[in-house]
Amino acid sequence: MHSLYNRIQGRNLDRLAALSDGIFAVAMTLLVLDLHIPTAAQIHGERELLLALAALGPQWVAYGLSFLTLGIFWAGQQTQLNHIGEGSRDLTWIHLGFLFAITLMPLSTRLLAEFITYRAALAIYWLNIFAPGVMLYWSWTHATHHNLIKPDTPQEIRGSICRRVLIAQSLYAAGAALCFLSTYVSITVIVLVQLNYAIAPSFRRTNPA
Amino acid sequence: MHSLYNRIQGRNLDRLAALSDGIFAVAMTLLVLDLHIPTAAQIHGERELLLALAALGPQWVAYGLSFLTLGIFWAGQQTQLNHIGEGSRDLTWIHLGFLFAITLMPLSTRLLAEFITYRAALAIYWLNIFAPGVMLYWSWTHATHHNLIKPDTPQEIRGSICRRVLIAQSLYAAGAALCFLSTYVSITVIVLVQLNYAIAPSFRRTNPA
Amino acid sequence: MHSLYNRIQGRNLDRLAALSDGIFAVAMTLLVLDLHIPTAAQIHGERELLLALAALGPQWVAYGLSFLTLGIFWAGQQTQLNHIGEGSRDLTWIHLGFLFAITLMPLSTRLLAEFITYRAALAIYWLNIFAPGVMLYWSWTHATHHNLIKPDTPQEIRGSICRRVLIAQSLYAAGAALCFLSTYVSITVIVLVQLNYAIAPSFRRTNPA
Amino acid sequence: MHSLYNRIQGRNLDRLAALSDGIFAVAMTLLVLDLHIPTAAQIHGERELLLALAALGPQWVAYGLSFLTLGIFWAGQQTQLNHIGEGSRDLTWIHLGFLFAITLMPLSTRLLAEFITYRAALAIYWLNIFAPGVMLYWSWTHATHHNLIKPDTPQEIRGSICRRVLIAQSLYAAGAALCFLSTYVSITVIVLVQLNYAIAPSFRRTNPA
Repeated sequence: MHSLYNRIQGRNLDRLAALSDGIFAVAMTLLVLDLHIPTAAQIHGERELLLALAALGPQWVAYGLSFLTLGIFWAGQQTQLNHIGEGSRDLTWIHLGFLFAITLMPLSTRLLAEFITYRAALAIYWLNIFAPGVMLYWSWTHATHHNLIKPDTPQEIRGSICRRVLIAQSLYAAGAALCFLSTYVSITVIVLVQLNYAIAPSFRRTNPA
Repeated sequence: MHSLYNRIQGRNLDRLAALSDGIFAVAMTLLVLDLHIPTAAQIHGERELLLALAALGPQWVAYGLSFLTLGIFWAGQQTQLNHIGEGSRDLTWIHLGFLFAITLMPLSTRLLAEFITYRAALAIYWLNIFAPGVMLYWSWTHATHHNLIKPDTPQEIRGSICRRVLIAQSLYAAGAALCFLSTYVSITVIVLVQLNYAIAPSFRRTNPA
Repeated sequence: MHSLYNRIQGRNLDRLAALSDGIFAVAMTLLVLDLHIPTAAQIHGERELLLALAALGPQWVAYGLSFLTLGIFWAGQQTQLNHIGEGSRDLTWIHLGFLFAITLMPLSTRLLAEFITYRAALAIYWLNIFAPGVMLYWSWTHATHHNLIKPDTPQEIRGSICRRVLIAQSLYAAGAALCFLSTYVSITVIVLVQLNYAIAPSFRRTNPA
Repeated sequence: MHSLYNRIQGRNLDRLAALSDGIFAVAMTLLVLDLHIPTAAQIHGERELLLALAALGPQWVAYGLSFLTLGIFWAGQQTQLNHIGEGSRDLTWIHLGFLFAITLMPLSTRLLAEFITYRAALAIYWLNIFAPGVMLYWSWTHATHHNLIKPDTPQEIRGSICRRVLIAQSLYAAGAALCFLSTYVSITVIVLVQLNYAIAPSFRRTNPA
């Protein structure tokens, strides 16, 4: 009975994509709710306002970092779903696990902004980058083993998706490990790795073209 | 006049699915807004931060439980809509009733996290699992009686959808009734039932394959 | 130059529908953020918790009322868009005006819950039902005059959509006017009118079938 | 390896549109969360309530202004995407940059409402209109240079999209510069420019028709 219900469940990849887009959209926009601005009562001039906003540096850094992280995972999940032809109940739950990690991102961002010099806060933030990476890796290997991938997907693309997750996650882990030097070094390295994936190759590719 | 307007209303199942995905996405992400983290002023060291986060145990449990609940209802509604070929005004309002119960989930989660040892809080939380179950059962029987189900849906699937709701809801009710022993026992049983629906059969099915 | 850009703008009705579904989904779910529950420090027993929740009566009423209102307007807009075959820049902005009124619903709900015995709060809430009605009426007459309606839409449906808005809005206005007796009478009448549109005709239609 | 992954990434324009609709929907609805209403304890009569709401003038102005801004950018991005036939990784990240600026809109709105007489607040708000304009301009020139535009797009439309951004942004910048007279003058001019794009040409076009 279970198996029958499970076989008919979770077939609709379009709705999984729609739920994912919704969750990413809310998470990206909710980040901003945690950004605090000074109140009128605390401020007595133009210059004081700009200084007060500048003093909120850690929260701007954490905000920008998290938007990048969410953008990278959104693009990564989209790439996978574009090549998966058929859904299944198990695949749906792997992606719900992925989305669960995504919904925690505003919380770990708030934690990092509040405790930007604490290694514990950075470790939790890194876990929130690591967990969705694990789920995406699992999603692709699951789809491979259960023949859910579109037949016309070339062999080298099948491999490149897993390699990409492994290399990116190794770089993030290395960056996070640098928190024993300083959490600021860690954050800088993680941002650079992310910018590399988001922006840099784009120019590298554009220039010779 | 009413009847004419009502006959042309609510035909668009795609928009119902889109509204549902949006509501689930917001509800899943809003849960996290109620998770409180300590402020920098309260914490004076790495270890203190980890202890303070661990002390928030009930809220993590309530959060995880509610994400599971939302995931199960999202998958359940999706399965139904995949097999319904035609919408109607009445079906739309049954699903709006279902979604109304879903929007209350962040609130009953907050209540459960705040009063995790109170049977009243657990009973309200259970009602919030029971109500969407009732609406999904009603939706399927309504679709059956009004011939809204896709003609190619096999007979055994038609039956399995109602059976699934009945069995799951009986198990949730049994779990909730255990609150007379302890609310923690109740929560544990409900989580186990949910994990059974979300994850366990997946491994059961995967292993022999 | 303006005209060229305006002619190519806002053609995509699918994206208008997606934006609308998103806004309704967020508004429906945000309502719940304004529902306050007692904190653990204020409560010392099961019975006290239930009494404290019951004492929050006005907020539950305002919440249920607003969900109904949003559901009715969502269904109403959907019915129109189902029959409109082509978008235009002007139609897009009429619907953005409609959505603007929808986004204000959580705010006027909060106002009504906070000041449930104030006629001013009820009048503002009624304005928030009146404004989207005006926009929907405008949307349909605009679509009629500019030949945006699908050619296969029967003549009696074209008329019924405007009649429906006029009758419903007259009933809401009558209900709101009763606030000179008591705001509770007003709210009761408005809820009954809404239930009539949402549920009652459904049974009326179902029984003879 | 990078290039392979990057070539297969971000092809799906539908998901980019869905994410955009979600972010705009959340941002438009979140604006309202920052609108503060008086509490029942502060108010002792109908008239006092209306006066208290009227005294919140700056927040209503900032709210209306931001909804207009978001509507204009939503319509502008939609127009572009309607004419772009193929996605790419780079285009996706340009649009994520655009969406990043959009998610900051509720924050700069809150800042403007809180400090409506401060030139610094107005300058930041203007930057939040300028940045998405830059991204949209970049998006269109990028799509032009990389042949991502649908082949059937007439030449004069290709040009009009860039001209539109340039003219609108020049008018906004001129409006913002007027803050050296008074921030209220600036806001009035920006609102008038926006109403011109949203509403005025509509009547201009409607009248002769």
